[in-house]
Amino acid sequence: MSSSDIFLGEVIGTAVLILLGGGVCAAVTLRRSKAAGAGWVAITFGWGFAVLTAAYISLGLSGAHLNPAVTVGIAVQSGEWDKVPVYFAGQLLGAMAGAALVWVSYYGQFLAHLTDREVVGGPGAQTTAAADRQRSDAPGPVLGIFSTAPEIRNPVQNTATETIATAVLVLAILTQGLTEGLALSGTGVLITALVVVGIGLSLGGPTGYAINPARDLGPRIVHALLPLPNKGGSDWGYAWIPVVGPLLGGALAGLLYRLAFA
Amino acid sequence: MSSSDIFLGEVIGTAVLILLGGGVCAAVTLRRSKAAGAGWVAITFGWGFAVLTAAYISLGLSGAHLNPAVTVGIAVQSGEWDKVPVYFAGQLLGAMAGAALVWVSYYGQFLAHLTDREVVGGPGAQTTAAADRQRSDAPGPVLGIFSTAPEIRNPVQNTATETIATAVLVLAILTQGLTEGLALSGTGVLITALVVVGIGLSLGGPTGYAINPARDLGPRIVHALLPLPNKGGSDWGYAWIPVVGPLLGGALAGLLYRLAFA
Amino acid sequence: MSSSDIFLGEVIGTAVLILLGGGVCAAVTLRRSKAAGAGWVAITFGWGFAVLTAAYISLGLSGAHLNPAVTVGIAVQSGEWDKVPVYFAGQLLGAMAGAALVWVSYYGQFLAHLTDREVVGGPGAQTTAAADRQRSDAPGPVLGIFSTAPEIRNPVQNTATETIATAVLVLAILTQGLTEGLALSGTGVLITALVVVGIGLSLGGPTGYAINPARDLGPRIVHALLPLPNKGGSDWGYAWIPVVGPLLGGALAGLLYRLAFA
Amino acid sequence: MSSSDIFLGEVIGTAVLILLGGGVCAAVTLRRSKAAGAGWVAITFGWGFAVLTAAYISLGLSGAHLNPAVTVGIAVQSGEWDKVPVYFAGQLLGAMAGAALVWVSYYGQFLAHLTDREVVGGPGAQTTAAADRQRSDAPGPVLGIFSTAPEIRNPVQNTATETIATAVLVLAILTQGLTEGLALSGTGVLITALVVVGIGLSLGGPTGYAINPARDLGPRIVHALLPLPNKGGSDWGYAWIPVVGPLLGGALAGLLYRLAFA
Repeated sequence: MSSSDIFLGEVIGTAVLILLGGGVCAAVTLRRSKAAGAGWVAITFGWGFAVLTAAYISLGLSGAHLNPAVTVGIAVQSGEWDKVPVYFAGQLLGAMAGAALVWVSYYGQFLAHLTDREVVGGPGAQTTAAADRQRSDAPGPVLGIFSTAPEIRNPVQNTATETIATAVLVLAILTQGLTEGLALSGTGVLITALVVVGIGLSLGGPTGYAINPARDLGPRIVHALLPLPNKGGSDWGYAWIPVVGPLLGGALAGLLYRLAFA
Repeated sequence: MSSSDIFLGEVIGTAVLILLGGGVCAAVTLRRSKAAGAGWVAITFGWGFAVLTAAYISLGLSGAHLNPAVTVGIAVQSGEWDKVPVYFAGQLLGAMAGAALVWVSYYGQFLAHLTDREVVGGPGAQTTAAADRQRSDAPGPVLGIFSTAPEIRNPVQNTATETIATAVLVLAILTQGLTEGLALSGTGVLITALVVVGIGLSLGGPTGYAINPARDLGPRIVHALLPLPNKGGSDWGYAWIPVVGPLLGGALAGLLYRLAFA
Repeated sequence: MSSSDIFLGEVIGTAVLILLGGGVCAAVTLRRSKAAGAGWVAITFGWGFAVLTAAYISLGLSGAHLNPAVTVGIAVQSGEWDKVPVYFAGQLLGAMAGAALVWVSYYGQFLAHLTDREVVGGPGAQTTAAADRQRSDAPGPVLGIFSTAPEIRNPVQNTATETIATAVLVLAILTQGLTEGLALSGTGVLITALVVVGIGLSLGGPTGYAINPARDLGPRIVHALLPLPNKGGSDWGYAWIPVVGPLLGGALAGLLYRLAFA
Repeated sequence: MSSSDIFLGEVIGTAVLILLGGGVCAAVTLRRSKAAGAGWVAITFGWGFAVLTAAYISLGLSGAHLNPAVTVGIAVQSGEWDKVPVYFAGQLLGAMAGAALVWVSYYGQFLAHLTDREVVGGPGAQTTAAADRQRSDAPGPVLGIFSTAPEIRNPVQNTATETIATAVLVLAILTQGLTEGLALSGTGVLITALVVVGIGLSLGGPTGYAINPARDLGPRIVHALLPLPNKGGSDWGYAWIPVVGPLLGGALAGLLYRLAFA
């Protein structure tokens, strides 16, 4: 694969991944959406089929990594690191484009959700100014459409959960022989997508399963840049964990593969 | 493929698509149905498996487009436009037949839902005449079994959402090489069906994801024609958006395919 | 395939189908079950994966019809009727065995559900004798674990719904070329199973989608024979509809296949 | 396959199985989890995709039994028993490792769930000491993250349910020709995973479907060893049933296979 095909494939694929993955979070979170309150099963299947769609589209161009942790895992396993920067660049840019497309697709819902004082504050709420001040202190439900946040904040624990969950994902991808072309099939993509549904159902409880540095960092940057009213902070204090944890997990999976499966 | 096979395949396939797709909306919406209130997950999987069933049945006859936006996307990508009118005709006719079959399958439920004053108006409701007048002003829940409607009415925004969602669908179909026969397999059909589930979960929130002009226009015509009591208006003011948005999205996907994937 | 293999395969396969299909109805309906109240999505996927498991197990022995309507559809399409009685006998016997296995698997749950006066009648309920008399008048929730019942009782309408839903199922099976061996694969079985999930979600609302005469009649006979306390009647007045409707639907699908697809 | 590959594959595979399977129980059960209350559909799909992921990873190393009942079923069918102890050892060790990984991944959630008096006891609860005493009498919701427990305690009945459910699972695996390599494919693994979802939906109601001695015994040992506060007893009185029932079911499936399918 040429570097330009890899870059293009990862930009398009990761954009589709985040458009659909962030989309399902918007669909379930935002009021005035037909999927409002559809719950955790909807979110986990939504993200899994986002992987399915994105991987299916970009498989021929770039091999559909769509995730720096996958790229690192394959590099550790294969020993080839020269294309890694091209993958990373495409993934981050694609994730940012995807997050912007979520904002376009749910523009009206974002606006209604964030500016409707009665809806946001509830009946008998504080005055608007006070409520706004309060909301800007803590990350609100809108940041959750872009990036992950832990239920219980504990850096060591949160990093461990992300590392373990990502190691399972990357190990499943490596064992299907992604680098040797065995996984470049519809069935392989389908199984990987359902593995992602499974990881979400099983290990998504504590941190919201970023399991992909680009999936978390790209949309967080877009959240910081977008002119959304009352959007609250972008929670940069947590931002390193869904980058470091998944990269560690990907590397661990690559090492384990060399030790046990090679 | 001969024109008569294409026409027949698209009529049968799109009829099955709308029978099952409109069917799940009826099943979840209408009172006195075993699936009443089954929710958004039921609706999105119902539509996805409607695509699975319909595409599987018509694959051999017509290639299973079942959607004018898919036909346009393939025409833009391949440059071949001569069969397009046959596809369009079969799709619209099939969609109308499918909507009529929904009405037959749920005849008793429609009647109970629309004429049971106590159920529709609730305890302490207005007098029947006043309630009827009110209901005929706004499209009621029964139109939603036939056609889509936005949560927030905004033509530019609604068109953008339909365009983006359809572009993802058609791009996924084009990249599996539909026109070259690679997708004429069970696995290809299964993945396309799950992509449709994913698009519904992720991008269905604002407009109810028509992503198919025939899926929306055919049943809307049938809604206007059917002798349903208290059925309300057919919301023709919105009808152009689920036609124009998806056609734009299909064309965009065809162009993107030529630029990036060819 | 020899007649003895067909008979054995249909007995085992249909027993597994009804064990799992009736099982999910028991799991969701009966109090003191971990799945109590899991809802329509659980029921439709449960029946679909019951088809998957049963068809997968019996595919090699009998071709996995497991349904007289499928057998009739294939006979109409192929013109070969000599094995039909063997298929029918195996299917009915298997369905009865499966229903008995549901009773064994949920024995404690049935007993608790049917004899716990406080649970069944609720606080402040009628005296036991009166409540028992009332319950034996109308088919109770326990018959629904064995056989189907319509939400709105209307013989013409109920037959039409069963006919349409079964025609879709059998058409999907015929178009995958079941009789020519093309469908004797894992992917074919998987798609058929998901088609069944889709038919349940979309067309199960009015009658509970028997779409299979053996699936309804076999367990109804077992319900009539089993010594369950307070089990109520077996609703024999409705029993002909889930036999006639599906057989009509299967025959229609066979005819349509000969006209349009051959 | 060499004994060391079998051992390694079963340890890694069963660890992944229990990490994801126990994980979904933790995700749905524990407060302060994003999946809290996601319900039975989430649990059954979570366990099914746990099988998918684990089997996919270990297929090449050990053939992915991951379950002593599967190993026994294959041994009865094939008559080869020499590798059985290696499989058993890897499965039990892997299950224990997986349960420990669940504890690591949900460490903060376990702690908050078990020590937050207000959450556990509710407002107006008994004093802490009394509540603790009460909780240690009966197995609490935390044991359910590790091992199964019946809804209605009845040794004969509970054993029968586990035997029947496991026989279905092992029969489905045997008929796909696991021992002859036919099942060593992505599609085979996917179907087995969905069969497990189906068994959970349909036959999980009475006992929580262990259907795997290692899946129940390994985590129960870890529950007994882990220093969790207020964890309650490990319910050793029930522990033999999810060992004996599944082993019986596996053996029965092997016998049935030899009689009917060979």
